[in-house]
Formats: sequence, C-alpha cells, structure tokens
Amino acid sequence: MSTTGNLPCNVKFMVEGEEEVGSVNLEKFCIDHKEMLVADVILISDTTMIALNTPSVTSGLRGLSYVQVEVTGPNRDLHSGLYGGAVVNPCNVLCDMVASLKDKWGRVTIPGFYDDVKECNPEERAEMAKRPYDKDKFMQSVGVTHLQGEEGYSDLERIGIRPTLDINGIWGGYTGEGAKTILPSKAFAKISMRLVPYQNAERIADLFIKHFISLAPEGVAVKAEYLHGGESYVSPLDTPEYSSASLAVEDVLNKKPIPVRSGGSIPIVSTFEKVLGIKSILLGFGLESDAIHSPNENFPVENFLKGIETIVLYHRNYDQMKQKLTG
Amino acid sequence: MSTTGNLPCNVKFMVEGEEEVGSVNLEKFCIDHKEMLVADVILISDTTMIALNTPSVTSGLRGLSYVQVEVTGPNRDLHSGLYGGAVVNPCNVLCDMVASLKDKWGRVTIPGFYDDVKECNPEERAEMAKRPYDKDKFMQSVGVTHLQGEEGYSDLERIGIRPTLDINGIWGGYTGEGAKTILPSKAFAKISMRLVPYQNAERIADLFIKHFISLAPEGVAVKAEYLHGGESYVSPLDTPEYSSASLAVEDVLNKKPIPVRSGGSIPIVSTFEKVLGIKSILLGFGLESDAIHSPNENFPVENFLKGIETIVLYHRNYDQMKQKLTG
Repeated sequence: MSTTGNLPCNVKFMVEGEEEVGSVNLEKFCIDHKEMLVADVILISDTTMIALNTPSVTSGLRGLSYVQVEVTGPNRDLHSGLYGGAVVNPCNVLCDMVASLKDKWGRVTIPGFYDDVKECNPEERAEMAKRPYDKDKFMQSVGVTHLQGEEGYSDLERIGIRPTLDINGIWGGYTGEGAKTILPSKAFAKISMRLVPYQNAERIADLFIKHFISLAPEGVAVKAEYLHGGESYVSPLDTPEYSSASLAVEDVLNKKPIPVRSGGSIPIVSTFEKVLGIKSILLGFGLESDAIHSPNENFPVENFLKGIETIVLYHRNYDQMKQKLTG
Repeated sequence: MSTTGNLPCNVKFMVEGEEEVGSVNLEKFCIDHKEMLVADVILISDTTMIALNTPSVTSGLRGLSYVQVEVTGPNRDLHSGLYGGAVVNPCNVLCDMVASLKDKWGRVTIPGFYDDVKECNPEERAEMAKRPYDKDKFMQSVGVTHLQGEEGYSDLERIGIRPTLDINGIWGGYTGEGAKTILPSKAFAKISMRLVPYQNAERIADLFIKHFISLAPEGVAVKAEYLHGGESYVSPLDTPEYSSASLAVEDVLNKKPIPVRSGGSIPIVSTFEKVLGIKSILLGFGLESDAIHSPNENFPVENFLKGIETIVLYHRNYDQMKQKLTG
C-alpha cells in the first residue's frame, strides 16, 4: 500500500507456527472458521526458486507419511558374549527389516505402495527436463560425489515426481565413547516417505505399518506408529491465479518463471483445498542454497526485497484478471 | 590362612581395572615384568557357574573383535523433501551394509571369517550337549519367546563354540521427540564379533574393515576402526591345574563340576598365555542370573562365601598335586 497507494483486493493473513510438527490444530481451525476464511485464492511464500536469474514458481509439492518404529528383543541389554549368537539382536533385526524396504532398483517394496501413483506422461517429463540443472554444482552444494535413486528416473524426477523412503533417524544400544559389549534390548527408527499425487498419507502409513510388522522375525516384538503426514499438491498452470504469479515474477526478475515440482511437503496446502475448497499459489523466494533444515540456514536479503516487489504486482495482476473475467 | 593356618603355596595378586576398555596397558605391563610375574598357573574368578546345585568350571572363552563404523553421505543434514530420492541416505546405506553381513542361515558373510575356526568334533559336541539346559527358563530369564542363530547348531553351541556378529549400538540422524524431516549426514554403528579358538582378533578386524569398506555404494564415504579385541582361550581338562579346581568345587558343592565353554571374553587370559607362557584356570562363582552388563547386576552372597571355601581348597589341592608330580 505504501508503494502503490492502494490495495487492489482484500487480504486475509494467516500465521501458522505448527507446520514442522504436522499442523495438528490447523485443520480443525479451518473447519471451525470456514466462513471467516472464504477467499478466491491462497498465497503461500514457503517455497524456493531456482535462482534470481532463473526464476521459478512451485507448481507441485510432495506429500509425507512419517512413522516411528521400535524393535524389542530381550527385556534388558544383555552381555553380548553370554547371549550373542542365540538371542535375537533387535539392532541387527532393524537393519535387516529396513534394508528390505527398498529393492536393488531403488523401489520401495511395501505392497501397494505405488498403487495410486499417477505416472507423469512422456510429454510432461520432457517439459520438466528443460529445467536448468547442473549435476556437479548440485552434488558440490551437498558435498557428495555421486547421486543415486530409483532406476529409470532423472535426479530431478527422483526428487520431484517420485515417492521415496528415507530413514530420518536411527538409534539403539550403546552409543557413547569406546566399546560396550552389549546385546541391546531395543532399536528405533524414524522413517518417512515422500508421496506424490494420489497417494494418501494415512493409507501409505497403514500399508507401511502392516508390512513392517509382517517383516518381524520370531524373537522380537515390533511397534510402528504413524506420527504425522500430509497430502501432495499440484497447481494447474492455466488459471488466473497461477498466471498472476507467473507474470509478477516475470515483471520483477525480467524472465518468465519455470513451473517446478518441489520434493518438499506443505501439508496444509492440501488441507486448504480439501476443507475450504481453495487452491494455493506457492510463490516463494528462497534459494536452493538456503540450507533449509540444515545448520547455517539462511535467506538472502535481495530475495526478500524482490519478493516484496513481486507480491505487490501479484495483487495488482490478480485484481485485473478477476475484473476482466467477471466483467 | 585364617581358616587352615597356612598358605600351602606362594600367591601373587594382580588387580586389573581396565578389562572393560580392552586392557590396553596390561600386555605392556606383563612384557615389562615377566620375571616378577613368573608362576605355575593363574587363577581368575571372573566367570560364572550354571548353579550352586549344578556346579561348572569354565574351560574356554570366546575372543572378541570390536569395531566402530561411520558412514557419511552429504556434508550436513539435508531437507529430506528437497533431496530425498536422489542424495544417498547414510542411515539407509548403513542398514543395507549391516544387513548383508549375515546370510539367511545366520552365518557371517565376511570373506575368510571362518577360515581359522576349528570345528568341534561330534564327540565333543555330544559331551557338551549333556550340559543341563532349560530352553524355556533361558528364554524367560531374558524375556524373549524365541531364540535364533546359526543353522546347524544348538543354542548353547551358538553361544559357546561358534563365532558371531552383533551390533552393540547404532545411531544417526534425528533421535529426539516427534518428527524431523531430515536426510542425515552421518550414521554410525558399534559392531563386535565374538571369536572362537584359532580366529585371531586383529586378523578378523582387518577382514571386517576391508569387507565393510568394499560394501559402500557410490555416494557415501565409509570409515571403520578397530577399537579393541582379545583372543579366545581353551583350558585342557587333564592337567593338575584344572583337576585342582574341579576337585575343590566338588568338595564344597558335593557334585563334580561340568566343564563349560563360555561365550564371554577375558582378553587377558590369552595375553597371559602368549606373553608369560602361563595357563589360566577360570574358577568363577557368578550365576547366569546375575544380569551382568545389565541393569540390576548382582552377585549372591552365598556364592561369594562358597567361592572363598573353594579357593582355599584349590590352593591345597594344587599344592598336593604338584608335590606328587615333582616327587
């Protein structure tokens, strides 16, 4: 308003502080306040773009299904000499079980896991492949010398349009300095699956839990708990909502932005669509070099300033397009 | 002396406080003080017996080779959505690598691991099988409903005469409350192998390290370090040393003790033999129910008192037998 002297459309702000712990109260808040939250479109700036000189707008997000598992062997840590060889070791068992969750082609082995995955058609994949991508730079930015993943897909497809399964944490037995010769009583892991359109987070968690428990050998007890999840999201590109965002970015950064499917998850986006019936536009200004969720997470001031300019234009564009559409 | 009024033989005491961290200084002490440590036999009471009404004397110990491994993927914890699927996850990789260290028959897959294992002959195995063993009671004591291990061997053989491999601890990534969606930078494990006669602890560690590093897929860096180890030990049963112990137990507990191979390790026993050329007698009075290396570790007072009586008789017996032998 201080720049243009007016605000061409009504704006409602929603501040969410629970996203990283699964937004447990936000769905209820939306259900309870449907009237108050009525809107044409939702603008969320929690995403990144490729670079200021290669702008992009996020057009899709992966979903998430996050579980914690616990494998219990003996009722206490045992002397590994007096029991090792005969009493089942829950740490070894956990490794066996987790190792079997992917096959040698990098595919998840949970029965039914891919049932609802909608394969992208060759044209869509060809379009995505046009996104600039410097493999060496990508590897260098995270300090690895090789990438790896599901056979038959490119690196960006593995991150953007394919589901996956990762251990987020694992622990059991003695983890201090030096050597302690125990056969541990318990082993734990936090395991999450990134999901793609039409996979349902709760259904995938159910499939995981059923399969994981079925893998347990005799001699251990297994628990598996669904911690939280969220659905994936795809934004159509031919709407006034998306076009307003795309044009605003082009005006500020002098280049038409590339639509990009992000591998991350913002569970509330699908909740908004389900509960309020409103689509979201994901217009974020972070960079892939921001090290998000890592030490030294950062956000460049220039992106912050360009973001302000872009959102001003987004409001103007959207108002104009709506006016034109509604006559 | 206060009981019998005399001490029939010379006694030298050695107190060792470093055993659980690998006795790193004791070998050097033995080398430096060979003259001072000259003796006919060494008596160690760091072992158990089956029960006061089923006495036993430990006639063998397994050796130990203890390693720590570290698998590094990216140079920091990453956002699992933005990188998961393409960047190799060191926790998943560690599980894959560890899972492959044993085959489906419970045998260790490290090339050369069994090369030096001396198989017990059928007569020896038949003799061992006479040891009283209540499987249900054993399982109940550690709170498991099934035992498992190398195919082709009984539970007691799996613990006593077969080598094995156990994870003593494993850790990596986020291990706190709730969910954190990271692709961890590192994963670690402490892994130990219990060894049997003629397997050499350092050689086994070398084989392990070489094999483990060879298992690493592209995209991760692997370190493996030998933390400590010790050799296995077997005491012949037809010597005056062993007979003195066996007779002393029989006198105090009114039953001939069964010779038992223990799955535990006391690395210094083989060091004594190697450096000083002296055999050890393993005359301990603990019980398998003592929960050693576990919470609520305990030692019954009655066993302590019976142990004192037995050692008095051991000295007397040994003195008499030596006198007889040397005329």
